[in-house]
Parts: sequence; C-alpha cells; structure tokens
Amino acid sequence: MAVYTHVPAEVLDALLTRYAVGTLVSAKGIAEGVENSNYLVETTKGRFILTLYEKRVAAADLPFFMALLDHLSAAGCPVPRAIPARDGTQIQTVAGRPACLIEFLSGVSPTTPTAAQAGAAGAALARMHLALADFTGARPNSLGIAGWHQLAANCGDALDRIAPGLGGRVADELAWLDAHWPAALPQSVIHADLFPDNVLMLGDAVTGVIDFYFACTEVRAWDLAVAHAAWCFDPGGTRFDPALSAAMIGGYEAALPLSDAERAALPALARGACLRFLLTRAWDWLNTPADALVTRKDPLAFLNRLDAYAGGGLL
Amino acid sequence: MAVYTHVPAEVLDALLTRYAVGTLVSAKGIAEGVENSNYLVETTKGRFILTLYEKRVAAADLPFFMALLDHLSAAGCPVPRAIPARDGTQIQTVAGRPACLIEFLSGVSPTTPTAAQAGAAGAALARMHLALADFTGARPNSLGIAGWHQLAANCGDALDRIAPGLGGRVADELAWLDAHWPAALPQSVIHADLFPDNVLMLGDAVTGVIDFYFACTEVRAWDLAVAHAAWCFDPGGTRFDPALSAAMIGGYEAALPLSDAERAALPALARGACLRFLLTRAWDWLNTPADALVTRKDPLAFLNRLDAYAGGGLL
Repeated sequence: MAVYTHVPAEVLDALLTRYAVGTLVSAKGIAEGVENSNYLVETTKGRFILTLYEKRVAAADLPFFMALLDHLSAAGCPVPRAIPARDGTQIQTVAGRPACLIEFLSGVSPTTPTAAQAGAAGAALARMHLALADFTGARPNSLGIAGWHQLAANCGDALDRIAPGLGGRVADELAWLDAHWPAALPQSVIHADLFPDNVLMLGDAVTGVIDFYFACTEVRAWDLAVAHAAWCFDPGGTRFDPALSAAMIGGYEAALPLSDAERAALPALARGACLRFLLTRAWDWLNTPADALVTRKDPLAFLNRLDAYAGGGLL
Repeated sequence: MAVYTHVPAEVLDALLTRYAVGTLVSAKGIAEGVENSNYLVETTKGRFILTLYEKRVAAADLPFFMALLDHLSAAGCPVPRAIPARDGTQIQTVAGRPACLIEFLSGVSPTTPTAAQAGAAGAALARMHLALADFTGARPNSLGIAGWHQLAANCGDALDRIAPGLGGRVADELAWLDAHWPAALPQSVIHADLFPDNVLMLGDAVTGVIDFYFACTEVRAWDLAVAHAAWCFDPGGTRFDPALSAAMIGGYEAALPLSDAERAALPALARGACLRFLLTRAWDWLNTPADALVTRKDPLAFLNRLDAYAGGGLL
C-alpha cells in the first residue's frame, strides 16, 4: 500500500525503450496492492501499471502468475496481462527488482458493494474457474489448512495479546476444521484473495480482477468461500448481509453451478477462509507494529466473521 | 508522500456530480506532494488530481493558493488550476477535509536534471515572477529568517543529536545571515519550493510547476536561490555542478535579468535557503521518528550545500 522503491524518470525512459509502447508522458507512484511498488505510467500510446516486486512476491513465482494472466485474458476474463517487451520477455529488472509492465484496466473498487455488484463478482469468479479448467500451471497453496497450523504455532501465545482467549479459540477452530475439512472437491488454480479491493467495476459490471499474487491450486469452492467472507459483511465483520450473500452465490452458480458436495462444504470452507485471514492478519499485526508503510488490518474483523459462520445459518 | 485518507469510490462518484467533468472511470491514490492525500482520477471527460488537504495546509490559505494558480494559468504559466464546480466553487469538503479537483498535467520530474532542464526550470521560474508582478494576493512567509530563528530555538540542543556541533553551526550561520541579509530587493509572491520534484518536464520542456503550498510573499531572488540549491547539487549535496548553475541562472536571466543588487545578494540568499531546508528537515527528523508514512529527508544534505556556498565561488 505504498511505493517502496523510487524509480527515477530517467530509468523509466530507458525501460520503455525495451517495449513498443511509445515514450513516457507521465508517471505517478500509486498506493495499491500487496507489498509491491506500483507506478501508473502514461506513454504516448497508452496507460500501464509498472509493478516492482518487493520481498513478498517470490521472483520464482512470476512466470506462473504471468502465464495465469495470459491464459485468463485469452479466455476473455478481464485481468491485466503483462506486456511483452520487444524481445518477448514479460519480466524485466528495474532498480534491482523483478518488474513487469502491466495492462491498465479501468474501474474502481466498491467500498460498500451492492447486491448487483456482489453478483457480478461471483459471476466473474465462476468464469475464471471455468477458464482455468484447461490451465496446466500449478502452484501450491502455502496458506492452506497445514499453513494455518504453522501460522498459529508461529504466533503462539502472542495471539492472546490481540484478544484474551484468541489462542484457545484458534486451536479449537483448527481442531474443528481438521475434523470437518471436506475432501475431494473440484480443484483448479484459484484467485484466493477476491476482496472488493481486488475487483474493478464500472457501475455493476466487473472491468478488472487484479492482484493474483495469492493465486494457487486449491479447492474451487474455497475461492467462493473467501469471496463470500470478504464481500458479505461490513468491514468490521459484525453485520452479515443475506442479500449480498444470495447475489454472490447466485452470480457464481449462474455461470458454474455448485455440486451438492461443494454446497454442503461451504460453511466449513467459509470458516477456514475466516481463520486464514484472521491468522495472516494476526501475524502481520504482531510483526509490523511500527511500520506505518503497511496499514495493519484488524484480525478481529475475521474472528467476528468466523463466529458468524460457526453460528450457522449463513450458508 | 502517502495517501492518508481513503476516499471510497462511492464518495468520488457523488463528488463528481458537482462538476461538469463526466463520470468516474478510474481512481488511484498517488504518493506525491506534501502531506496531502492525492488521487489520480479519470473520468469520461479527462484526468484530474483530487487533493484532500491534511493538517499541513491551512484551509484558510486555500483561497490564496487557488487565486495564485488561476492568475498564473491565465498568464500562460503551466500550473494546475483547480477546476470550478458547477456552482463556481473550487473548494469542496471530502471525507471531512477541504478538497480540490485539480487539472492533471503531463510530464515527469527529473531525478538527475541536465543543464538544459535546469535552464528550462530557471526560465519557468522567471516567467512566473513576471506573471506575478500584477498579482494582488499576499501571504506572509512563515519560513523566513525570523522563522528560522524560531525553528532553531524549537529544535534546541536536539540539533546536536543529528550531528555533533550542528546547534553551534546553525547559531553561527543565523548570526551571519542576520548581519548580511540583503534589504530591499524586489518582492512578489514566489513558489519558495522549486525542487526538481515540483517541476514536470517532457524532454527539456517544462510542462508543469506544481506544489505551491509554500508560496508566499518574499524576495524574488530568494526563489531562485532555493531552486539553485535544490537543482545544482547531487542529492547528498556534496557535488556542485557549475554547468547546472550557469544554465539555471542563464535561463532565469534570459526571461528576467537580475539587478546588480540581486546578483550580489545571491550567495547570502543561497545560504539562507540551505539553512531553511536544513532546519525544517531537522525539525521533521526529530519529530517524526517512527512515522514511516513520511519519508524523512536528510537535513545534513543541506548542511553540505551550506558549507559549499559559505566556502564561496559558487555564485
């Protein structure tokens, strides 16, 4: 959510000569995305996003992400492709960091989505899942159920510093999820982080799905569960909106109907989704106290959601 | 240098209905300028900068800044005017803060300016000074020589925490400036902060002068001295570039020749400019230690420049 690396205009000028995209007209550092540095770059031929990958994205994963975006784009999904340089390469080095020049997509992210917007997001997710049925790339999910155990162990007793009893609650939930985690649901590469922040819209239409840097091979319905937890509550996680929920699932199913097994698994998957964000936010909360470059997100907003799903009746 | 206030897309949508600028297509928080929040906003009719004024800019000063930019723009200077709303007002309230929708200007700021670019910047400064000869607005300079005394007193012994002996060096320099400060040079409203960051260029042409939030009524030649100190050294202030210096002063004088008194005063004015940035940076350094939202700039880069000017022969 900040610009970590300053890219001088002179360096941008030189970079753009590697591409057939015209010459530099404007460049603004933008506050967006995970821990990358992003510039909105305008040239004589168009607008682009230049992303410099900081420590949180592994350089070795970039070819997977680029292939994924190319595949989705070729299938008609509104995702930002990396622009190939004149020599065909998509990954350059800028200021010592791996960097990609990426398509600019119009649209803005809703802060308080409407049901129509949640429905469109659900439909866009289903269309990506359909498009990925024949995608051969794969990437393990380091933030699956085994990863949550590891994260909880790494946080240890410090969880109780965030809220008294949180460590015990997490341990109980992990035990419940171990016992109830669904087996053998359809998998594909999934987005895995479809918050409203990562969806660009004009009115009720999705114009872009962005920030694929958590994409991984995982149960498809878990992607829907993540989106459901992210879209169907207020930001504090205390107010569930059944209309958003119905619209999102309806939008998804209009493009890709859920099987009985997927539908039956949704409540457990949603609890898992809440625990995933609770734990990653807790870890960030405990480990980035003084670094105001990163806005710490409240882990308890996902404890509230977890409680709501665990109470039943939402899905 | 960060986005302090999040403006939801829904709020932007509503704001834009007050203007005749089309409807929202895209909005990106940009990392730019002093302590304001800035968004690059694209509509169906064009691109704009939305600035929300945070604590560092006084709301009471905004009408002065808006009148200044209107005056310069009408005189043909490339500065970003505030767009009037349909009702003629230029200042709105967004998220509880005063806010202006401002023209977007193309261009990028040089990081390592060439002599041609320094010359163009000097010429642009002179043309602004000429254009402001008949501007009737006025704003006191709170960061003039009296302000430096106050800043030095406020920093107190803490200056020596930045560098041993810095407090004594500052006191000596203040005494020297008190004894040698030029009287009765031509004044007007000046930019007062013409760093390369605040000049947008395409090639060697100035396409925009931005960030007028230090503009004030002051000795005109002091504006040139500030620009000289900002442009004619490397960022650490250790390497002076005579070619940049000659180009900048030549560019200025081609449009607006300096009087003998102004030229004679330049060395003292440049020392004052260095002390001004040394002291404001020192104050920020001492008072924003843990707030990484603001990038602390090194005060000693201006001690180096001060030493260079005090050594003589540069101007």
